[in-house]
Amino acid sequence: MIERDAIRVFAPATVANLGPGFDVLGLALDGPGDTVTARALPTGATGVRIASVRGASLPTEAEKNTAGVAALATLRAAGVDIGVELELEKGLPIGSGLGSSAASAAAAAYAVNLLIGAPLRKVQLVDPCIEAEGVVAGRHADNVAPALLGGLILVRAVDPLDIVRLPVPEGLLVVTATPAFELPTAKAREALPSEVPLSGMVRNSANLAALVSACYSGDLGLLGRCLFDDVVAPARAALIPGGAAAIAAASTAGALGASISGAGPTVFALCHSRVTATRVAEGMVAAFEAAGLDATPSISPADCPGARRV
Amino acid sequence: MIERDAIRVFAPATVANLGPGFDVLGLALDGPGDTVTARALPTGATGVRIASVRGASLPTEAEKNTAGVAALATLRAAGVDIGVELELEKGLPIGSGLGSSAASAAAAAYAVNLLIGAPLRKVQLVDPCIEAEGVVAGRHADNVAPALLGGLILVRAVDPLDIVRLPVPEGLLVVTATPAFELPTAKAREALPSEVPLSGMVRNSANLAALVSACYSGDLGLLGRCLFDDVVAPARAALIPGGAAAIAAASTAGALGASISGAGPTVFALCHSRVTATRVAEGMVAAFEAAGLDATPSISPADCPGARRV
Repeated sequence: MIERDAIRVFAPATVANLGPGFDVLGLALDGPGDTVTARALPTGATGVRIASVRGASLPTEAEKNTAGVAALATLRAAGVDIGVELELEKGLPIGSGLGSSAASAAAAAYAVNLLIGAPLRKVQLVDPCIEAEGVVAGRHADNVAPALLGGLILVRAVDPLDIVRLPVPEGLLVVTATPAFELPTAKAREALPSEVPLSGMVRNSANLAALVSACYSGDLGLLGRCLFDDVVAPARAALIPGGAAAIAAASTAGALGASISGAGPTVFALCHSRVTATRVAEGMVAAFEAAGLDATPSISPADCPGARRV
Repeated sequence: MIERDAIRVFAPATVANLGPGFDVLGLALDGPGDTVTARALPTGATGVRIASVRGASLPTEAEKNTAGVAALATLRAAGVDIGVELELEKGLPIGSGLGSSAASAAAAAYAVNLLIGAPLRKVQLVDPCIEAEGVVAGRHADNVAPALLGGLILVRAVDPLDIVRLPVPEGLLVVTATPAFELPTAKAREALPSEVPLSGMVRNSANLAALVSACYSGDLGLLGRCLFDDVVAPARAALIPGGAAAIAAASTAGALGASISGAGPTVFALCHSRVTATRVAEGMVAAFEAAGLDATPSISPADCPGARRV
């Protein structure tokens, strides 16, 4: 059952939180992502070895790298005791708020599962990827689930895992702008309040609930109104030069709504036409430039595939 | 345009919160409710006069009674300056967690609007009813919106009002058990935490989001798992003798899920068959009896009409 050929897998960038869905919502982009090549080591070898990391400075000890942890956890979940060598090509900048650690984990888990004859279903790879996220950013699934499965995913619970695929309104586009500024996830997490006012919980949960409703009903006006988050986003926006201005610029340029992508510093906006999306991307980039930061824009459909063989 | 005949309107009981949807979700029941009869006073008279209140001990000053406040606010919203007399028949016990104050407000607002030739759409009566709730229980719409409009309503925001009607899975039933124990809403609100842990916000908002998804997809298993609330409900359950036991009994008897209705002490459960619903009602009543309280059960479809002329 073990593939002798190398398996090469791509997993995409993801936008987590989507405004009010802190730790709960995430969606896959079609833009850049990470690529993992997995090979079986000669019979008798065990464990995971990371042969190379290109495109970023990351540890090559398997236990300290989300690709390595996800690969090890996938082998364990499948009950397969072979040795695997990984090559990791980082297409995503670290600390950008685009789910870089999740993309590595998702690509590695999916590649290893294919390498051993695909004994696990794709959804069963989410748990190994959550274990990997736990090493760098806490046990959350809002990046790894869409990085694996594609589309827009709602994470009801992590332990035990309970996820729901949400429908994506047709034609919806996601614009991102990633400033040249690394915001370590750990630092962004430190900025979070440990407690939130009950009134803030009510507002955020109402917006999240209405966002889910808008995904089913296709009410784009409602979808845009729901992207607001005044509990988690303000603490993070303060860490991102130009972040609040970029979000404001997106709205001015006609976006349905905008907020911080994951832990930031990337900001994202939802749009429903290519013309608007282009204008929004320009506005967000200009706002970062006004704060002294170059920024890289992307425009992606909101309903993109997850990890796949390349 | 002013009706000379008396207008008699019924508005139903409502279950607010529905587990994780504190201040955000509510649905109408078909069981008991409040009835308001409105009559125009002779030309020249202005203001609202409450001629009688039957079935409960409530103030008859219009400004202190939600029926009176809603009637006054409806006249003001319509810009009609006539005098109105109301008779209020309380079919709902006060402080029961079944939206008693909301039913009075909804019935009065709808009756007065009909009396003056229905210049306002039904949804425009929600604001006058929120004003009425503000007098007794804070400005929230999770009872008044379903009491007026029927069905299952999501309140995204109160100021300005932004509400969404959610689909109700076919055949879904709501079981309630109301113990003979008054829990003033003000006291139940005092028991609320002013701050909640961020992790609690994430769990509650994830459950609420998944509950909305389950309403659209009809996934009843998911719907049941989502009724859990460990932020608001525990503080309130502690005030209700037998409350936690009644919720546990509902699950044991096969309910999809159960929680406190509004501020309590009524508990509710969702079921998808009449046989289960009957067993659940018996189990909840027995749990209250074991705590020394008589309890009144009801079984209602989950998709019931709101305020209507009778």
